[in-house]
Amino acid sequence: MIAAFCKRFSCAGAKYGSYFYRAMGESLSLQKVEYMFGIVGVPIIEVAMAAQAAGIKYVGMRNEQAACYAASAIGYLTGRVVSCCPPPPVSLADHGAVTEAISVLKAAKRPLVIIGKGAAHGRAEIALRKFVKMSGLPFLPTPMGKGVLPDDHPNCVAAARSRALLQADVVLLLGARLNWILHFGLPPRFDPDVKVIQVDLCAEEMGNNVRPAVALLGDINAIVTQLLECVHKDGWKYPSDTEWWSTLKDKIVANAKISKALALQSTLPMNYYTVFHHVSQLLPHDCIIVSEGANTMDIGRTMLNNYLPRHRLDAGTFGTMGVGLGFAIAAAAVERSRNKGRRIVCVEGDSAFGFSGMEVETMCRYNLPVVIIVVNNNGIYSGVDPETWKEMAKMGDLTAIAPPVTLLPEARYDKIMAALGGRGFLVRTVEELRSALQLSLSDWEKPSLLNILIDPSSDRKQQVTLTSSNIQYVCIQLSHPV
Amino acid sequence: MIAAFCKRFSCAGAKYGSYFYRAMGESLSLQKVEYMFGIVGVPIIEVAMAAQAAGIKYVGMRNEQAACYAASAIGYLTGRVVSCCPPPPVSLADHGAVTEAISVLKAAKRPLVIIGKGAAHGRAEIALRKFVKMSGLPFLPTPMGKGVLPDDHPNCVAAARSRALLQADVVLLLGARLNWILHFGLPPRFDPDVKVIQVDLCAEEMGNNVRPAVALLGDINAIVTQLLECVHKDGWKYPSDTEWWSTLKDKIVANAKISKALALQSTLPMNYYTVFHHVSQLLPHDCIIVSEGANTMDIGRTMLNNYLPRHRLDAGTFGTMGVGLGFAIAAAAVERSRNKGRRIVCVEGDSAFGFSGMEVETMCRYNLPVVIIVVNNNGIYSGVDPETWKEMAKMGDLTAIAPPVTLLPEARYDKIMAALGGRGFLVRTVEELRSALQLSLSDWEKPSLLNILIDPSSDRKQQVTLTSSNIQYVCIQLSHPV
Amino acid sequence: MIAAFCKRFSCAGAKYGSYFYRAMGESLSLQKVEYMFGIVGVPIIEVAMAAQAAGIKYVGMRNEQAACYAASAIGYLTGRVVSCCPPPPVSLADHGAVTEAISVLKAAKRPLVIIGKGAAHGRAEIALRKFVKMSGLPFLPTPMGKGVLPDDHPNCVAAARSRALLQADVVLLLGARLNWILHFGLPPRFDPDVKVIQVDLCAEEMGNNVRPAVALLGDINAIVTQLLECVHKDGWKYPSDTEWWSTLKDKIVANAKISKALALQSTLPMNYYTVFHHVSQLLPHDCIIVSEGANTMDIGRTMLNNYLPRHRLDAGTFGTMGVGLGFAIAAAAVERSRNKGRRIVCVEGDSAFGFSGMEVETMCRYNLPVVIIVVNNNGIYSGVDPETWKEMAKMGDLTAIAPPVTLLPEARYDKIMAALGGRGFLVRTVEELRSALQLSLSDWEKPSLLNILIDPSSDRKQQVTLTSSNIQYVCIQLSHPV
Amino acid sequence: MIAAFCKRFSCAGAKYGSYFYRAMGESLSLQKVEYMFGIVGVPIIEVAMAAQAAGIKYVGMRNEQAACYAASAIGYLTGRVVSCCPPPPVSLADHGAVTEAISVLKAAKRPLVIIGKGAAHGRAEIALRKFVKMSGLPFLPTPMGKGVLPDDHPNCVAAARSRALLQADVVLLLGARLNWILHFGLPPRFDPDVKVIQVDLCAEEMGNNVRPAVALLGDINAIVTQLLECVHKDGWKYPSDTEWWSTLKDKIVANAKISKALALQSTLPMNYYTVFHHVSQLLPHDCIIVSEGANTMDIGRTMLNNYLPRHRLDAGTFGTMGVGLGFAIAAAAVERSRNKGRRIVCVEGDSAFGFSGMEVETMCRYNLPVVIIVVNNNGIYSGVDPETWKEMAKMGDLTAIAPPVTLLPEARYDKIMAALGGRGFLVRTVEELRSALQLSLSDWEKPSLLNILIDPSSDRKQQVTLTSSNIQYVCIQLSHPV
Repeated sequence: MIAAFCKRFSCAGAKYGSYFYRAMGESLSLQKVEYMFGIVGVPIIEVAMAAQAAGIKYVGMRNEQAACYAASAIGYLTGRVVSCCPPPPVSLADHGAVTEAISVLKAAKRPLVIIGKGAAHGRAEIALRKFVKMSGLPFLPTPMGKGVLPDDHPNCVAAARSRALLQADVVLLLGARLNWILHFGLPPRFDPDVKVIQVDLCAEEMGNNVRPAVALLGDINAIVTQLLECVHKDGWKYPSDTEWWSTLKDKIVANAKISKALALQSTLPMNYYTVFHHVSQLLPHDCIIVSEGANTMDIGRTMLNNYLPRHRLDAGTFGTMGVGLGFAIAAAAVERSRNKGRRIVCVEGDSAFGFSGMEVETMCRYNLPVVIIVVNNNGIYSGVDPETWKEMAKMGDLTAIAPPVTLLPEARYDKIMAALGGRGFLVRTVEELRSALQLSLSDWEKPSLLNILIDPSSDRKQQVTLTSSNIQYVCIQLSHPV
Repeated sequence: MIAAFCKRFSCAGAKYGSYFYRAMGESLSLQKVEYMFGIVGVPIIEVAMAAQAAGIKYVGMRNEQAACYAASAIGYLTGRVVSCCPPPPVSLADHGAVTEAISVLKAAKRPLVIIGKGAAHGRAEIALRKFVKMSGLPFLPTPMGKGVLPDDHPNCVAAARSRALLQADVVLLLGARLNWILHFGLPPRFDPDVKVIQVDLCAEEMGNNVRPAVALLGDINAIVTQLLECVHKDGWKYPSDTEWWSTLKDKIVANAKISKALALQSTLPMNYYTVFHHVSQLLPHDCIIVSEGANTMDIGRTMLNNYLPRHRLDAGTFGTMGVGLGFAIAAAAVERSRNKGRRIVCVEGDSAFGFSGMEVETMCRYNLPVVIIVVNNNGIYSGVDPETWKEMAKMGDLTAIAPPVTLLPEARYDKIMAALGGRGFLVRTVEELRSALQLSLSDWEKPSLLNILIDPSSDRKQQVTLTSSNIQYVCIQLSHPV
Repeated sequence: MIAAFCKRFSCAGAKYGSYFYRAMGESLSLQKVEYMFGIVGVPIIEVAMAAQAAGIKYVGMRNEQAACYAASAIGYLTGRVVSCCPPPPVSLADHGAVTEAISVLKAAKRPLVIIGKGAAHGRAEIALRKFVKMSGLPFLPTPMGKGVLPDDHPNCVAAARSRALLQADVVLLLGARLNWILHFGLPPRFDPDVKVIQVDLCAEEMGNNVRPAVALLGDINAIVTQLLECVHKDGWKYPSDTEWWSTLKDKIVANAKISKALALQSTLPMNYYTVFHHVSQLLPHDCIIVSEGANTMDIGRTMLNNYLPRHRLDAGTFGTMGVGLGFAIAAAAVERSRNKGRRIVCVEGDSAFGFSGMEVETMCRYNLPVVIIVVNNNGIYSGVDPETWKEMAKMGDLTAIAPPVTLLPEARYDKIMAALGGRGFLVRTVEELRSALQLSLSDWEKPSLLNILIDPSSDRKQQVTLTSSNIQYVCIQLSHPV
Repeated sequence: MIAAFCKRFSCAGAKYGSYFYRAMGESLSLQKVEYMFGIVGVPIIEVAMAAQAAGIKYVGMRNEQAACYAASAIGYLTGRVVSCCPPPPVSLADHGAVTEAISVLKAAKRPLVIIGKGAAHGRAEIALRKFVKMSGLPFLPTPMGKGVLPDDHPNCVAAARSRALLQADVVLLLGARLNWILHFGLPPRFDPDVKVIQVDLCAEEMGNNVRPAVALLGDINAIVTQLLECVHKDGWKYPSDTEWWSTLKDKIVANAKISKALALQSTLPMNYYTVFHHVSQLLPHDCIIVSEGANTMDIGRTMLNNYLPRHRLDAGTFGTMGVGLGFAIAAAAVERSRNKGRRIVCVEGDSAFGFSGMEVETMCRYNLPVVIIVVNNNGIYSGVDPETWKEMAKMGDLTAIAPPVTLLPEARYDKIMAALGGRGFLVRTVEELRSALQLSLSDWEKPSLLNILIDPSSDRKQQVTLTSSNIQYVCIQLSHPV
């Protein structure tokens, strides 16, 4: 489906001449490779040309790193296998274990379904929608699990995430893994006595960090279907009038209030919540959101809804910075082929953007209409304003005194996009934000970049402090995504 | 002397708290680490802050790759030992072997000295200058050996490189290695019966590719001193009126003629030779030249002279693209500390620039007055002009049809520099080139970038073809650096 | 369940003192480690002592290699998980795929079930016995699959192995892999159009070498049960009067005739078939057979029946020589704990024995009553007789002229066992063989070693040639296990 | 010079047929490979045969481990380079550093020369003998440095090793490394203020563990020659009437007394000192001693003299057990070719012997007249006597209760040798020891094995304790080699 290659490691073909290259191109094509991302050089220009001759689309990137990131996104986006293989066979969980899982769920007072990337990858959305409806259970998506069911689904309790994780007595883990993103499934973020029903494709993953009460090994979609059948036969449904639902809903309302208060602050520079509030309103429901950064990615996860499965790509389990533009290019290349009219929106922290910012040239070169939103706070986690920066520069060598997290204040990333032929917007106000985003979303010919200058001294907690001292305590609780 | 670190791999300190960080900073300082390049993130912001508190300069980069390249250049530039050891002990070659080496040299009809990076690293310049003067031998520097002796030294035969390599009957290899840069020391680029006197610090290196007639193991400077003493006692000098010297000098004159013809072409867009001719005239003799690219680096090696040792850094043995801006930042940081008034000039191909182009923000942030010269031919090896590109875009999806070597025509890299606060110049003519470079060299506050648009369809051979068909044959010979 | 450790790599504990060691012993015990194999030295004597104090059995071996082999056998023998986890969850195959598999089987003219190590490991014996009975299909075990169903089962076609593999049109692969042991599932040993129904626990294994017609992913036992249910519902049974069954049965009879003719040869020295014929008659049905060697293991596989699952351990997929005595020691240690009255019989080629022959001291030290049968042909594949060897020794330095496959003729491995306190028997005739084996099997106190001197110049083909020229062709066919 | 190969990893040749094998044999021969050690199997029998056809001696071993050990010894024994290279070029130390080293030595009150394996490897014996004579310095060999100068040289202070290391104020380290064998050059075994003059071939080795006062980088022999010249010119000699010499000589006399007392104990079973005392008297001065074990190797180092360089091979820096028989086979193969009439004597602990004891068959097969001395104390460090063992066996499962260090008491390793055609001797008394060793040394046709049963409950300290309580303190000091 996809190949990434690098000049540095690909000299083998040099001595085999044109036959080799043609054979290589045809072989890749036979294996249904559709896209190739790379950087050519002697002696592999011919590889890329042979690939094009065989009908493969070649996207020339600016750094091998970004080429690899782009390649790695293709399989996930298209659902097609890498290494033409038959689709992998489907395995089911043992019936007894399924029955036991349902028993454990039925005995739960405070049950929670966690939907992970595995559910997205396993294309479990249809069965899962029925299961959630029939079972009446609250659910929470992991970052890459967002969109398997829509974020505005009535059973979604993402806006009460911390509370849900902490107080659940039974967790049904669907293709989600108990790594740092889920706080390892351990106290203080989870109840020490929580029972976990683990559903995973991978036997080696079972029991990592937490020993499951029930382990269901197999294809996520097949197992959700088994659970659905079991619930259907049983006729059981988790009541909607429990204390647990009240707790969660109260928390959702309270958190929404806080977010909204933050979002509606009218002071300038804007804060994260204001930015995401408006972005969220304007983004089409079927857009593909790519995201990376620290605060930008974390707060963005809570504020930007996903409505469709596999429509979000972010820095993922390893928090790798620099993936965003490569992912966006891959998504745009796929979208161009599939022609479904979906926008690719890339939401970047300013530091994250720098890891592979030169790839805007790639977008411009191929007219890939990606919309890049850089939420620019002049640094990593936080930065300083231009005046402070000038004062520091007068005090001595900046390498000796500038905080390591600071970047150049108000760097004009928008002008980089413009320099290369795309549309660049400098954004300081809500009005500018809405206008620029609407213009960007209406242009299908060119990439755009919104350089949104926000308050550099703020992070999540401080925003709260600045707003209203009486909700400070609550918001410290928010300090990891609500 | 130097540390590079990456957020990704440096989480160990997280749980040891502030004591750990302070101890770490002080330890690095005790070991005389002066510079640190990296990108911070939780939990290593504290490492960088502790380093600054201990007097270490911290340069925040935009991608770990560039941070590593910057760090790797420091040792070479400062002559101080990496990752506070005593200076490594000096070893000498066996006296008998030295005598034998001189005998072999005396018996040579067509001797050649090749000066490699090892001679630069070993700081052999003073002894070597005396040795070349006393022995009267012709010499040739490797790319990183350039400047150990000045490129305009009367015995330098770099301008007859191919001829010198091909016809030499005895080669004295001083810290240079017979890898691809020296065509492995093998036919068709070398005489199959060439005798090699190999001088190297590393026993394992002896005999790689070519079995040496004499091997001198030890410190390059010490061995050159031994050779010098031996020649001095002996009183021998290679005559200046040999056929070999005539051959070489004739070749130098012929090649100079061709280069000059190319350099003085007045057609626009300019060609590589024209650009480098004028750049060469304007660069101060003590500038540090950083270079990477394909044609840009290759032709630049022949056209841009070095006059001082360790004043050139390029993509090196492995031809790694993306090193340039990191090297330049490291050199500028050292220069700021040393305050010797030297300019850092970074000569980049346009594709090479893209590998880590975002580091211009780093230069702007720290006001590092690097002069970046992008020799822009719209692609890798060659590109297309804007009109051709537009025609191609009308023909279909560019990923399917655009030659893999092409990049966006006339991309405004100069505006990227300007967007981030530096000086950007778009250069199309000799006049613009000279003016922009003079302005850039006179500004010690800010980085500059000259975006020099040259003929995208030309490479070395074609330039010659276009100029004068009757020197075509000669110029094909030129196709690897003269 | 088991730990193997080596002095060489285990110095970490040295500085932590006795607390460390006790904690380690208790931790291993808590994890239900029952056996430990190793070689002690400073500083890990204490580890072994702490393990013993915690109730773990420590077996001191003579070489770390053998210790590792011993450790690796424990999990397989005891069915308990390695380094106390819950049992791994069971996954089933997709119902549709099961139905499809049965359809493919029903459409087969020449079906074949291949039972692999995975079926043994997955403890599929009960379901499989029912499935074979109900479906009426012929089956063939792989070497480590032997005994899942008894080798004398009426549906076992092992004695027509080559024919069965070559002519089968549908193969049901149960936990067996298409590696070199199964000739990669490819011509000339398989029909190029064979359809494979692949049943495996591991998704990555699917499609290796041959793309399966149907792939059933999951637990072998669970899937065999699914197949059984499907056949049961369907009521289908492969008829016993097909041409395929006739072909296979005729081949079995013909091969049995040849083997018997070879087995009953009365010339001395004995051949492999004679030896295994008599060994086979005397071994108890519930003994655990360990085997390694070249001809010894290959011919032994066809001549020594297994009647119970997981009662055979051999050099396995990688053909690793030297595993035998370690495996036997592990099996004997388990048997001592389980006390089921089973004999451990170790059938070794003479070269194979040499890889870890010193472990007979371990058997003697712990009074482990292993019966070692060395089938000694004075070499690897073949050797020479003592007279020929003496002649060669007179001709010059044996390292220059002795065939690399030869070992010392008639080496008295039996005396090595005797030297260390076990029973050693030199065996040259059928009578000596039967007597020595009966004595060995009746002694439960000590290990025994039968050193059976066979014809050193013979291998499988030659044996046939010597017997009867008119069956030569057939026997060349035999040259890989019948 | 040498190749070792293993069946397991060498299947590549299989498909290239006979041409490949012949080319391989000839290529190895061209590179002057003389010996090959390995174990053949399909498909590499042909490699060994082709090697023999090309004049290479092939030694078939019983385990790949032993084959590798054998191969690794060849280069050291023959002084020829591994896998035909020119001899490595010789490098000298800087003259200034040599002069400085002599100044440091002249200023020393308690100087010590340590001669390491590097001096043996560098063939520095002639220069070193002159240097020691001219300088009058005391010296100490490391285990593998023994014999570079004879152990009975008047300046050898090996018998006062601990005192010499502890009180030296200047150490001249000649090709010896400050690893665990030299207690890392650190307190409490060295004076914290000791000055080290480090002479080594390897720049990376300089300053490991201890920062040298002077570092001399280069060829050991060349540098010793430089030091010799410098001392010669200077005319300096360390006086023989210093307090330091008195201290060392007094200590040597005292230690000799203790050793002799231990050696002359007449109780049975014998102790280590008695055994080595008599072995030492009977071994020819030019024999090659191979040794491994714990007490056996440690005490043997102090009691068995070496008189010639490169005549000792032991478990070395890493203390690898199992190397002995492979080393001895390699030495015997070289001796057979060189025909210098030297005996190979292999001094083994009983546990060490077990790691590759089956290689006695290799010695017997090729009639390699190695004399193996197994100093058998029934275990690792210590064992138990047969009666105690029987009592333990009655008490329960030996794997649960036998000390991990114990081996089978009085195992008849001598009978293993006899079983395979060599000479085996069971030795319990001094008379039996002398007789058996004399007989063994007189037989040039066959290998011999002396199985010397010593007191299993004794180790060094206890021996002393048992002997005479009033010298107990002194002997605890002895607990690491005198």
